[in-house]
Amino acid sequence: MSIIVLGTVALDTVKTPFGKRKFMLGGSAVHFSMSARLFSQVNLAAIVGKDFPQKHIDFLRNKGVICDSLIRSSGKTFKWEGKYEGDLNIAHTLKTELGVLLEFCPTLTEAQKKIKHVFLANVDPDIQRGLLESMRSPSLVGLDSMNYWIDTKKQSLLRLMKKVDIYVANDQEAKSLSGESNLIKAAKALRACGPKMVLIKKGEHGVLFYCDKFIFAIPAYPIEKVVDPTGAGDTFAGGFMGYLARAKKINAANIKKAIAYGTIAASFNVEAFGTDKTSRLSRGGLEKRLRTFKDCVTL
Amino acid sequence: MSIIVLGTVALDTVKTPFGKRKFMLGGSAVHFSMSARLFSQVNLAAIVGKDFPQKHIDFLRNKGVICDSLIRSSGKTFKWEGKYEGDLNIAHTLKTELGVLLEFCPTLTEAQKKIKHVFLANVDPDIQRGLLESMRSPSLVGLDSMNYWIDTKKQSLLRLMKKVDIYVANDQEAKSLSGESNLIKAAKALRACGPKMVLIKKGEHGVLFYCDKFIFAIPAYPIEKVVDPTGAGDTFAGGFMGYLARAKKINAANIKKAIAYGTIAASFNVEAFGTDKTSRLSRGGLEKRLRTFKDCVTL
Repeated sequence: MSIIVLGTVALDTVKTPFGKRKFMLGGSAVHFSMSARLFSQVNLAAIVGKDFPQKHIDFLRNKGVICDSLIRSSGKTFKWEGKYEGDLNIAHTLKTELGVLLEFCPTLTEAQKKIKHVFLANVDPDIQRGLLESMRSPSLVGLDSMNYWIDTKKQSLLRLMKKVDIYVANDQEAKSLSGESNLIKAAKALRACGPKMVLIKKGEHGVLFYCDKFIFAIPAYPIEKVVDPTGAGDTFAGGFMGYLARAKKINAANIKKAIAYGTIAASFNVEAFGTDKTSRLSRGGLEKRLRTFKDCVTL
Repeated sequence: MSIIVLGTVALDTVKTPFGKRKFMLGGSAVHFSMSARLFSQVNLAAIVGKDFPQKHIDFLRNKGVICDSLIRSSGKTFKWEGKYEGDLNIAHTLKTELGVLLEFCPTLTEAQKKIKHVFLANVDPDIQRGLLESMRSPSLVGLDSMNYWIDTKKQSLLRLMKKVDIYVANDQEAKSLSGESNLIKAAKALRACGPKMVLIKKGEHGVLFYCDKFIFAIPAYPIEKVVDPTGAGDTFAGGFMGYLARAKKINAANIKKAIAYGTIAASFNVEAFGTDKTSRLSRGGLEKRLRTFKDCVTL
């Protein structure tokens, strides 16, 4: 099964209590790809600048990621710089250089337009809508966003939500967009905006899934040494969407499995900088930790 | 099976977005009793003042709570006034009148001293130790505390921790006492202080249990309308300890069940002011919601 992910490919500079990395490969679409590739063939729709190291593109291709719609432009690659302190749950953004993101107009190949599964990771909602409208007849559309767009392009985001199946948000975004402080109420309000399924990511506290038929919640996999949480949410989304793209049916059992795979993939992400762990992750490694996880959460 | 709970019996004044209640029955030992009574015979060790309405004592007795060691003193009953806003996870204390708590010296009857299960809910750690030392040979001792004692009587608390089997704390207390910001590390550090089992309450995010043999985590039961969360942690502890006091063996299966019962009991607590819901709760009601909960959390 194939899946399209639209999002960012970035050069991240990250400082945590465990060290500092400069200009490492990052971005929502990259983190998503590292876990989604374990289940589906991932097609990347993103943009980088002329300063983007070719080795990173080779690396992505080596991981099986299709880069036909990864545009290389003459500008500068999107760069994010941040630090984590204390409990590592909150990222403090130090610098953001949008660079080529400002001119991003994603295009898919004719073959990619026919792909049935798509995840619109965090970029401008108008860009997300543009890509979605270029697709022939997607059967499962996931959408992520962030506070910046909720604050500045709320109407665009709300319009887009009517056209997607799954809305993925962290708890703060869910509260902010819905205006509800209770997460169940927030999930219900977001569901009323269009998406049949709402998935709220709560970081170290796990995830909450809401649809009309059932609610599902699981904690995060317990990790003692969180080295760098950057991209954990995208890695979660990649495991979740990647598994659903592969599953034959979107039913409760498969949704729960997809959430479990996403959770486990995210637990590997936070254990090392950038994609250091997730890029080396195998399906077997994922399954092994999932078995341990089941013991930790099964009543 | 019988259980002793040492703690507060209070008159609570609480304001939440859903209303205000003045001088209602509250306190750690009361909330604990409302859930523990569903599994075990609860013996209350607490103090009230001469202003404490007799109807509350009659109410507790009607609920099967043994009040032989509920002291009535000539001073004023412990009063707490607080309010909740926004997401209702944080209590803002407006006023605390310790009253008779300042002179509290709990005493048990000879029969009560032989009881095997005891929960030391939040009071001065020296008072907790005094009660524990008066008991013949308790087989399961649970301990709760709060930031105030961690800050002002840390050494007393640490000495007491060496003598208990289970330490129950909320996430902030666990981080504060252990000096660790990661909850798994915090749980390990607290376990190293003495108690074989550590239970960290995370409010709406559920609980994390740690012992040398296993880690267990479950989310809270999803509640859309949180009316008054006061006493949720004590209600959790009551369900947990009450079930363990009744269980024949302290093994992984029973610990997980106890955590589930505590979780469900707490979910009823937050749905209404004070003990409005938990005092009317039956074992059947608990079992019914537990079945729904299992669907929400089982992979």
